[in-house]
Amino acid sequence: MTVYNFSAGPAVLPKPVMDQIQRELPSLQGSGMSILEISHRSDRFQNILDTAKQDLKDLLQIPDNYEVLFCQGGGTGQFAAVPLNLANHHRKIALLDSGHWASGAADEAADLGYTVDIVGNTKANKYQSLPYPDRELSSSEYDYLYTTLNNTIEGTTYHNQILPDHKDITLVGDMSSNFMAERYNVSDFGLIFAGAQKNLAPAGVTIVIVRKDLIHPAEHTPKILNYAPYVKKDSMFNTPPVFPIYVAGLVAKWLKDLGGIDEMERINQKKAAVLYDYLDESKLFHNHVKPSERSLTNITFSTGNEDLDAQFVDFATQNQLVSVKGHRSVGGLRASLYNAMPIEGAKALVDCLHKFEQTH
Amino acid sequence: MTVYNFSAGPAVLPKPVMDQIQRELPSLQGSGMSILEISHRSDRFQNILDTAKQDLKDLLQIPDNYEVLFCQGGGTGQFAAVPLNLANHHRKIALLDSGHWASGAADEAADLGYTVDIVGNTKANKYQSLPYPDRELSSSEYDYLYTTLNNTIEGTTYHNQILPDHKDITLVGDMSSNFMAERYNVSDFGLIFAGAQKNLAPAGVTIVIVRKDLIHPAEHTPKILNYAPYVKKDSMFNTPPVFPIYVAGLVAKWLKDLGGIDEMERINQKKAAVLYDYLDESKLFHNHVKPSERSLTNITFSTGNEDLDAQFVDFATQNQLVSVKGHRSVGGLRASLYNAMPIEGAKALVDCLHKFEQTH
Repeated sequence: MTVYNFSAGPAVLPKPVMDQIQRELPSLQGSGMSILEISHRSDRFQNILDTAKQDLKDLLQIPDNYEVLFCQGGGTGQFAAVPLNLANHHRKIALLDSGHWASGAADEAADLGYTVDIVGNTKANKYQSLPYPDRELSSSEYDYLYTTLNNTIEGTTYHNQILPDHKDITLVGDMSSNFMAERYNVSDFGLIFAGAQKNLAPAGVTIVIVRKDLIHPAEHTPKILNYAPYVKKDSMFNTPPVFPIYVAGLVAKWLKDLGGIDEMERINQKKAAVLYDYLDESKLFHNHVKPSERSLTNITFSTGNEDLDAQFVDFATQNQLVSVKGHRSVGGLRASLYNAMPIEGAKALVDCLHKFEQTH
Repeated sequence: MTVYNFSAGPAVLPKPVMDQIQRELPSLQGSGMSILEISHRSDRFQNILDTAKQDLKDLLQIPDNYEVLFCQGGGTGQFAAVPLNLANHHRKIALLDSGHWASGAADEAADLGYTVDIVGNTKANKYQSLPYPDRELSSSEYDYLYTTLNNTIEGTTYHNQILPDHKDITLVGDMSSNFMAERYNVSDFGLIFAGAQKNLAPAGVTIVIVRKDLIHPAEHTPKILNYAPYVKKDSMFNTPPVFPIYVAGLVAKWLKDLGGIDEMERINQKKAAVLYDYLDESKLFHNHVKPSERSLTNITFSTGNEDLDAQFVDFATQNQLVSVKGHRSVGGLRASLYNAMPIEGAKALVDCLHKFEQTH
């Protein structure tokens, strides 16, 4: 029986990619050595890294005045790295508090000594809609406006058409949970980052896409969080996370073969609609997010009753539908429909919800 | 034909571990999900992390007043994290400059604003012997004495019997390249760290073993480099590098089955002797390190002639002996004989050196 894994991350990888990893694990490209064992200074790995980077550039249509960096430390690392590298003119950041991770980013920047102004929040609404700036923002006051593009826990997304106004301010976007799942224009952003463990690779690599002219690291910035050595040494000033970069390359190829991000977005919309359409009809399960702001990748729902939600988690698990429990901070239920989740998974989940609803 | 990979890291993994990774890649413990896909919040992963940690504690005989942390960012990350967490009483560090990586650690601590006193160096000797403190060191002046226990590039090691005097000062040791390759007493150290990509796992996880009472993070320490949240949340305050931790657990089990670190050290001594004995007899290839300070894991040698060294690299590669080129900063040749390198690899290398010597 097929297991469908709805984990919010680390999450499912494309089946053909998993097959390739397994097949060539003992001997990469006939080398007699595993990708887990080769030197990061080998031509073989340099080629893997270069190709992965180029494929990301092609897929995301990244302009030439942007750098693509392969970092470690996930979103938590970038919560520090972004202000340390980009917020040293005014040491002042505008931030939209759209939920748990936005708030985490605000706390970290403040802990590092930066001024963080929350210029909009939807806390009163339990973050079921997105905040927009309550004032005009200018780059003469703030180094950037920080946004969490996709709110993994709350199930909301600033889609490309509903980005906050950024004509007078640099926009920074945490794209961890919808990276390459829908189309954005990179040139709308000063910086985008994404932990790979949702749509790109296993946990352990973080992609940073940053406009070159914005990099001005603070004095005393730890080297591992300083973008300058990454730029200078092409993400190889130290040992990079070789294996997740290799997998990211395979996933990028898979996505190219599939038709790129526009095609992926079309598929993701169809896939998400399977679940949203059911939820909108259901008498038992509900999603409360404003329709235009609904996430394609993280779909939150609930019966409104904690015990019943827990019963459904058990019922789903018995039916090989794994990790549908909501984040511990908000409760309820959640299904993550990342790029690698086949539409059959969404359909199986709806069947299961439907069965459960009929008996409750 | 078998390929032997002498890379200084990322490096060879034990064959039975590689086989197990490949075998269970599509379905971990019959779960229908890959280790690359499971949530780090699952019981399955929590158990993997707990077991890996306990096996490391058993193998290294780590006392209860020490924490074992799974970090990201490699040695470079720890070059910052160690002073940020341990050097805030005096903001002053004593350091033995034993080569490239010791010097890198010194630069990073100084860049972060700490005072670094080089209390011994063997630069004049091209780092072919180890420095010892040129003065009495006291914890009333310095937060700790920093040492690079195994110098991967220069091929020297502070073995357990020849550690610098540390009765009045906290000792910190970078054990990246000889972690679990030979016996140390953890209680001799305030902190030990090791990038995993030599003896433990693929690149992407760094082990930190630190005495609990020493952790005093500086204000403004980025969370990803702050030991306190790692301690508080058992290395899980954010998404940890799941796959390398899983492999570290498999390698720890392999090492336990083999007989533990004492047995591993015995094997490593025998393995290294195969190569050192040849080098001491050779008329063409020479190792210049003081015998009592020779590394078991990184063996440097050279003909003394750059062209001839390069010819040997080609000759070895043709014979499936890979990555025997010395580090770019020192040139020459180097063979890394980590735990997972079978003695047959050392013998094959000696055969190859011998053949080359006969014709040159």
